[in-house]
Amino acid sequence: MQKYLLAGAIALVPLAAVADPLPSWNVGDAKTRIVTFVESVVDPAADTYVDPGDRIAVFDNDGTLWAEQPVYFQFIFALDRLKEMAAADPAILTTDLLKAAAAGDMEAVAAAGTEGILEIVGVTHAGISTDDFKAEVRAWLDTARHPATGMAYDRMIYQPMLELLSYLRDEGFRTFIVSGGGIDFIRVFSQEAYNIPPEQVVGSSGNARYEVVDGTPTVLKEEGIFFLDDKAGKPVAIETRFGKRPILAAGNSDGDFEMLEWTTAGEGPRFGLVVHHTDAQREFAYDRDSAVGKLSRGLDEAEARGWLLVDMKNDWATIWPGGR
Amino acid sequence: MQKYLLAGAIALVPLAAVADPLPSWNVGDAKTRIVTFVESVVDPAADTYVDPGDRIAVFDNDGTLWAEQPVYFQFIFALDRLKEMAAADPAILTTDLLKAAAAGDMEAVAAAGTEGILEIVGVTHAGISTDDFKAEVRAWLDTARHPATGMAYDRMIYQPMLELLSYLRDEGFRTFIVSGGGIDFIRVFSQEAYNIPPEQVVGSSGNARYEVVDGTPTVLKEEGIFFLDDKAGKPVAIETRFGKRPILAAGNSDGDFEMLEWTTAGEGPRFGLVVHHTDAQREFAYDRDSAVGKLSRGLDEAEARGWLLVDMKNDWATIWPGGR
Repeated sequence: MQKYLLAGAIALVPLAAVADPLPSWNVGDAKTRIVTFVESVVDPAADTYVDPGDRIAVFDNDGTLWAEQPVYFQFIFALDRLKEMAAADPAILTTDLLKAAAAGDMEAVAAAGTEGILEIVGVTHAGISTDDFKAEVRAWLDTARHPATGMAYDRMIYQPMLELLSYLRDEGFRTFIVSGGGIDFIRVFSQEAYNIPPEQVVGSSGNARYEVVDGTPTVLKEEGIFFLDDKAGKPVAIETRFGKRPILAAGNSDGDFEMLEWTTAGEGPRFGLVVHHTDAQREFAYDRDSAVGKLSRGLDEAEARGWLLVDMKNDWATIWPGGR
Repeated sequence: MQKYLLAGAIALVPLAAVADPLPSWNVGDAKTRIVTFVESVVDPAADTYVDPGDRIAVFDNDGTLWAEQPVYFQFIFALDRLKEMAAADPAILTTDLLKAAAAGDMEAVAAAGTEGILEIVGVTHAGISTDDFKAEVRAWLDTARHPATGMAYDRMIYQPMLELLSYLRDEGFRTFIVSGGGIDFIRVFSQEAYNIPPEQVVGSSGNARYEVVDGTPTVLKEEGIFFLDDKAGKPVAIETRFGKRPILAAGNSDGDFEMLEWTTAGEGPRFGLVVHHTDAQREFAYDRDSAVGKLSRGLDEAEARGWLLVDMKNDWATIWPGGR
């Protein structure tokens, strides 16, 4: 092994404002505020300068980086997997809800509420090693298509947010996902979709245990929620994960309220961003009355708290990668 | 803001083998095996090459990076804090064990075993915000001294391990702590002692809740263990935290066995390292019969599993920073 020293003349060539880091953001207040904030924390001469080690940006996933209608994509995966598991072994359908869900009775599923979701997720996300589970998710993403758009779920990601992630990384930020979704689910596509590696995904997790199975060390997913990374759970997850506060947080629902509150209450420059789904034509329009991604308190308080409310319809020139 | 391009001539100047990355390691098998492993994973031409993103190294803390005798330093902190809390408000001593501990009756504390430790840690690590707790730990580290060495606890760190951490980072590894100790405790000194930032510390954690206290968003530490990062808990913590396996793990006790097993069972080049405390003169000598940092199974199986057993007395030229 050899080591090398950088030597010789290094010339610094200004690129000036040649490249727009956020081409899918329309010119306007939202774009200006983002760029102004980023420039303020990377300028060593400014008293708002933030050390690269502290340039941590956290992003919710469902509804912030990818779509979440008509229902969280992970739940669609759980329903598909339940049907597949039931086809192989009908005995797993031990309750009326599971039978209804496997039969595609979405009214019964909806009526069962959060408890019903957790029951279905419990059955479909347990009794399997993390490695095998990830392979199942990968196979599903490769074949399943969204009922309304016909797109692969991991292509229903927001081009303007991809540009924001990339822009922040170019400016020395580290970008993380802090999601109510399951870590083992998100980690399957985070690298390819967002350029966010598995170790930069924070999320909900189920119980798990370590066991040597037939000589092979294995981490097995078990029934029951270990940690629910939503609402007041998000600041706790952030504190547990980082031991320091991010300086930028982005979300889209009231499940992100506490994360935004915790992040923006820190000292020094802070940025809170809320994606408001206002585009019924190109994506979906919903806020206060939505069963998924409800945004009410955040909508009321964003302005007073200094959080940027992104108007998807007017602020985003394109929604999906490829230009629509 | 301006961007710059690197331009101009860059000459690569070989440093060859001028600098020994591990000067506190005596020449011998241990040092050779470490260097050989590292060189094998960073050489792009070798089929053992590992992508920088996967060069993750995890280190136990107590007994691996700093000392742990006569008892875990965090527990000494807990006892000191209990005495201080009791002096301010004797009513907190609600059990015989707490009264005995506050009075310095170490026999009673020892007799209470693990349950006793958890009771004392519970009282002294709860009912306080994470920020205030960290300030308490900092103040303690600045004043408390080890009973045998008279050294500050955060100076009782192993110089050879500091060199190993630094060497790995220079070779593109990211270094993490995966400790049975509490994350909020370790994070207070990890940056200064090991150059490991708070977000690269994984450890045990207590329950916590988020609350806006008098207008200030706060994460409050509560009684009860949320996650015990020891034994079979370590692989689970690693899987939850990274979603992939480290390629190097270092520990010193049977509490690290599963972490070493999980890490070294992965595909491709892997390295397991066990620090064996064999130096009664410069540090402490203990293994199978020690109440703290017991090493028995690891001692029996290290060789067969291909793990490097570091003989502190013979492999380390110095123990502490400064040269002793």
